[in-house]
Amino acid sequence: MSTDLRNRIFAELDALILIDPHTHIDALNPASTTLADILGYHYYTELAHSAGLPKAEIEDPEIDAREKCRRLITNLGPIDNTIQYSWFVEMAQAFFGFEGDRITADNWEPIYDTAVEKMSADDWASNVLQQSKLEAVFLTNNFDDPLEGFDTAVYVPCLRTDDLVFHLGNAAVRQRLEDASGVSLGDVASLKSAIGNLFQHFAGKGARACAISLPPDFAPAKVSPGRASTAVEAILTKGGDASQADQRAASNFIFWTLAEFCAEYHLPFDLMIGVNRGVYPEGVFQGQDLYDSRLSLIQYQRLFNAFPQVTFPVSVLASVTNQELTSYAWIFPNVVTNGHWWYSNTPTFIEHDAAARLEAVPRTKQIGYYSDMYKLEFALPKFAMYKRILAKILAERFVVDRGWSEQQAIDLGQQVLRGNVDTIFFADGDELAVEEFDEFSL
Amino acid sequence: MSTDLRNRIFAELDALILIDPHTHIDALNPASTTLADILGYHYYTELAHSAGLPKAEIEDPEIDAREKCRRLITNLGPIDNTIQYSWFVEMAQAFFGFEGDRITADNWEPIYDTAVEKMSADDWASNVLQQSKLEAVFLTNNFDDPLEGFDTAVYVPCLRTDDLVFHLGNAAVRQRLEDASGVSLGDVASLKSAIGNLFQHFAGKGARACAISLPPDFAPAKVSPGRASTAVEAILTKGGDASQADQRAASNFIFWTLAEFCAEYHLPFDLMIGVNRGVYPEGVFQGQDLYDSRLSLIQYQRLFNAFPQVTFPVSVLASVTNQELTSYAWIFPNVVTNGHWWYSNTPTFIEHDAAARLEAVPRTKQIGYYSDMYKLEFALPKFAMYKRILAKILAERFVVDRGWSEQQAIDLGQQVLRGNVDTIFFADGDELAVEEFDEFSL
Amino acid sequence: MSTDLRNRIFAELDALILIDPHTHIDALNPASTTLADILGYHYYTELAHSAGLPKAEIEDPEIDAREKCRRLITNLGPIDNTIQYSWFVEMAQAFFGFEGDRITADNWEPIYDTAVEKMSADDWASNVLQQSKLEAVFLTNNFDDPLEGFDTAVYVPCLRTDDLVFHLGNAAVRQRLEDASGVSLGDVASLKSAIGNLFQHFAGKGARACAISLPPDFAPAKVSPGRASTAVEAILTKGGDASQADQRAASNFIFWTLAEFCAEYHLPFDLMIGVNRGVYPEGVFQGQDLYDSRLSLIQYQRLFNAFPQVTFPVSVLASVTNQELTSYAWIFPNVVTNGHWWYSNTPTFIEHDAAARLEAVPRTKQIGYYSDMYKLEFALPKFAMYKRILAKILAERFVVDRGWSEQQAIDLGQQVLRGNVDTIFFADGDELAVEEFDEFSL
Repeated sequence: MSTDLRNRIFAELDALILIDPHTHIDALNPASTTLADILGYHYYTELAHSAGLPKAEIEDPEIDAREKCRRLITNLGPIDNTIQYSWFVEMAQAFFGFEGDRITADNWEPIYDTAVEKMSADDWASNVLQQSKLEAVFLTNNFDDPLEGFDTAVYVPCLRTDDLVFHLGNAAVRQRLEDASGVSLGDVASLKSAIGNLFQHFAGKGARACAISLPPDFAPAKVSPGRASTAVEAILTKGGDASQADQRAASNFIFWTLAEFCAEYHLPFDLMIGVNRGVYPEGVFQGQDLYDSRLSLIQYQRLFNAFPQVTFPVSVLASVTNQELTSYAWIFPNVVTNGHWWYSNTPTFIEHDAAARLEAVPRTKQIGYYSDMYKLEFALPKFAMYKRILAKILAERFVVDRGWSEQQAIDLGQQVLRGNVDTIFFADGDELAVEEFDEFSL
Repeated sequence: MSTDLRNRIFAELDALILIDPHTHIDALNPASTTLADILGYHYYTELAHSAGLPKAEIEDPEIDAREKCRRLITNLGPIDNTIQYSWFVEMAQAFFGFEGDRITADNWEPIYDTAVEKMSADDWASNVLQQSKLEAVFLTNNFDDPLEGFDTAVYVPCLRTDDLVFHLGNAAVRQRLEDASGVSLGDVASLKSAIGNLFQHFAGKGARACAISLPPDFAPAKVSPGRASTAVEAILTKGGDASQADQRAASNFIFWTLAEFCAEYHLPFDLMIGVNRGVYPEGVFQGQDLYDSRLSLIQYQRLFNAFPQVTFPVSVLASVTNQELTSYAWIFPNVVTNGHWWYSNTPTFIEHDAAARLEAVPRTKQIGYYSDMYKLEFALPKFAMYKRILAKILAERFVVDRGWSEQQAIDLGQQVLRGNVDTIFFADGDELAVEEFDEFSL
Repeated sequence: MSTDLRNRIFAELDALILIDPHTHIDALNPASTTLADILGYHYYTELAHSAGLPKAEIEDPEIDAREKCRRLITNLGPIDNTIQYSWFVEMAQAFFGFEGDRITADNWEPIYDTAVEKMSADDWASNVLQQSKLEAVFLTNNFDDPLEGFDTAVYVPCLRTDDLVFHLGNAAVRQRLEDASGVSLGDVASLKSAIGNLFQHFAGKGARACAISLPPDFAPAKVSPGRASTAVEAILTKGGDASQADQRAASNFIFWTLAEFCAEYHLPFDLMIGVNRGVYPEGVFQGQDLYDSRLSLIQYQRLFNAFPQVTFPVSVLASVTNQELTSYAWIFPNVVTNGHWWYSNTPTFIEHDAAARLEAVPRTKQIGYYSDMYKLEFALPKFAMYKRILAKILAERFVVDRGWSEQQAIDLGQQVLRGNVDTIFFADGDELAVEEFDEFSL
């Protein structure tokens, strides 16, 4: 009974046209050209490597796409239990007509060939979007991205600010900032002016969010003008040789400045909290980061209090932080729960974490899911995974446990999947987005 | 099948007459007079505020009860997914004959009017107790409460000690202590004597517990007599201007002294561990507190070892601390698991936490639930929520997974709901309580 | 439906012949001689004590086995809800023909007598192994164990190293090390040589792992030769009077040295992370340890990076660390998830933790379970508990939620239960083990 109920709820959720509120899509090259773009995703390379495949065998720049796929696929057996592997199979089924449930050394080549052919079509990216029922996807743009050459109503710009906050000691980053902003960096005022120009540029191009990923020990604080001045000047003159204290103060100053501009430009500020970079430096590309789950959102107390007018969609890397996120979103009007990030983006954690949010955070303040994808093909299986879990929670915990009607449960699911993305990121009623929505409606 | 089983177990649990071992009821004014007393509970104000309702609109002292309810109810749509909202609906159904499942701008006024009428009856409080199958409720009394004017067999006194441990630097608190104890505070000896007088007063009035809520960084330690002397004198003379070190030492000394008096007076000492006060100072009344989940019960190692003769019913604010609580109660004879507190009092966390306790902590050492309520009407829906979850766990994890008989499962449920409250808080066989029990039996 | 499916999967898993990869069995005395050996297990003594039984009543050396059992059994009522109690009942049912579901003051004596009789048979230990479908069990040997007098193919040696790393300041430990290694300890070189001799001895006797339990604050680091020299000499000359800094540096040096020898001897290094010893010093024997769940595997970053050639089967004491373990095993090729340890070895935590691993860690890198037992009779009920939970997860989360075939689910279960133990600990193809496997096959 509960399985039928789940399936009916899933079908309703699966009929929605969605906006994916956080991805790493390259708008100029959004879809894959071969299966190697899919299997090159760090989820596959890092798991295959973890199961024994030497890094050199897949990161050798000499090997071509077909050979890379052969090497990876013949090493996916040890990971065919993982949910990540299931995304690959579901993509092959949905996009390339694969009818089995395991892709192996024996059956991968026809899939590869079909994929190459389909991906070569001019309208492949838009076909993928349509088949995935995606109206638009948010990007994560470098601060110096010209944001040109694509439709910003479909590929929605988002200003990524990690480099500004954490790598301004790097001369190349400073040069990029000067080039992008047209401001020569010399002091706090010019730095602020440069950052302001970035926001003006992004807002002019239809950016809908500012975003940053943060290490577990970050605890944003307002820095006094004098301290900011000393710290910023140390960074601008000494770069990475500035003292740790100056680097930290400069990071804090820049982070706080970003929040101020988010307020000024009415942009939500996506906080992705908890990652330690390069924990396993010999790991594969993008497969080196881990975390320390000993963090608390109390570290963000000052920020949340100082910027009541800024919406903070917050993602946490570890499921053990989810209750704090739930509680902070329950109390702070400007804190919104945002998706299931990375190491928490697997069914057991999603189920526990989403269930806790759905029953205690206002329904208007939950962004159910984002794909975090690098290539468009991933949205379909990732969202499908989430929608199945959401349907399970709604069936078991709302209809069965709490006596909700099926329609009430579906309405809640639709709101966290789609409605809240509209109200949180498009609150000022962008006409393009609305038109686009009509165009894509089934 | 499992749903029928659950329902049968629930029916048995729901037939019990209970004692609520922790509430914030005002014994002189225990029930609501209008719906505003119910909707004024911080769970509604803070969630409505979190979803966008400005604090001023509900905290304006000028608005009357009906208008306050109108403002809140018209802003509850965004929180109608929450379990807290479901408590409100269940109260309206149980007490005021409401037959729908959503209370909205369109249907709230008849409920309001019915409530006003019913609440005005002289026997409203006792009717609520009887309909809620509650024989008695524990209070949480300020240390200077005269404890007069009510039946202490129904409204069981409990000495709340937060002010003594954490706010003795406040001159008003010191004055209250002098007034209540009849002791002029001058040094450690007089402070101890004053506290002893409070215990004598409370014990004489039938108090059954001492209670305190504690911040995440508190780690009780015994303070040497010399250090205690210096610290207490600093607090008594300098108040809040005493050094942090002196304030901390004084807190530790007073806390330890409370434990000593609990031993002397055979009172359980309820520890409610983990809250940070005022994290969101602009939040609504009682909607400003949050927490830092980075705490460990290892902080209480010295306390649990030093007072084997004192029972410590322990509540933790964060579900991530529940396994430690389970393990400490599994080993330490004097540690008892106590309910599901505040941010952990939602179904997903209750289910996970209660299941872990039920299978690893002696069945005699688990206090299943308390309501934490401020008005009597809340016990019914809160206990009903817990009993449904308890029935689900007993059905799925004991009858189905472990092959228990239905009756064995029911017996365990009844013990954690009622039996243990009797043995832990009324071990010395208070006759009044027993009589009261008969009187209320169905 | 799901219950039938579970039962079918369980039956297939339960048919496997297993190797138990971590126990505390004494190979010269592996099975019980009376029920007192079973009820003397700390799980029963500590729970009975926690529920009120004074330690003196069960630790009095004067009382005989029957009387000890009487005292314990008449005090097990308060713990008959626990999963640990269910192990006792399941043992009585499986080994001694007990047909009830509660062992009480009224029915225990026939079980006791039957047990004494059966346990006195010469082939009792091998019967228990056979009935438990166990081909071999790993030991946890003191470093100075002669490893003689038993079949190391059935009782597989494992070098326990806690004493070396944490108690070398103890003169008796140093003496044992000199005696066992034949090396006179005087400096770093001789200490290293002594440890090397232990590895040679253990490897020569067929040891398959090195193991250690670690406190929550341990964070292994490589120590420079000069620092190691100073620290080791301080320990060797001053023992426990060496400074904390020297003791810590010496611990780090020895731990790192062990990892180097694990690399040299191709031994997996079992890390059991998170225990605080003696938290409740007045507790019963082996019932005094607890933990602080505030730890992170980031503390092991340097170790995992420095020894890519060593496999680290990692156990964590707290379920809140399980996601980190899952994530570290997902990325680091040399990190393997290992069982469900101690306070996490109860159904609710096993279910949550195992489900998270099964869907995100390569299937080849998960050691499903070990019993941690002191007497052979415990493997049967403990593994049965795990297999039931594993069958539940496979049924609900793989067959129902993810559409796997029943056979695919069973294959995954068999791999984590048995296959991975072979590949991780017997990778170099020990012939004895293989022969033994044939001999025991059903």
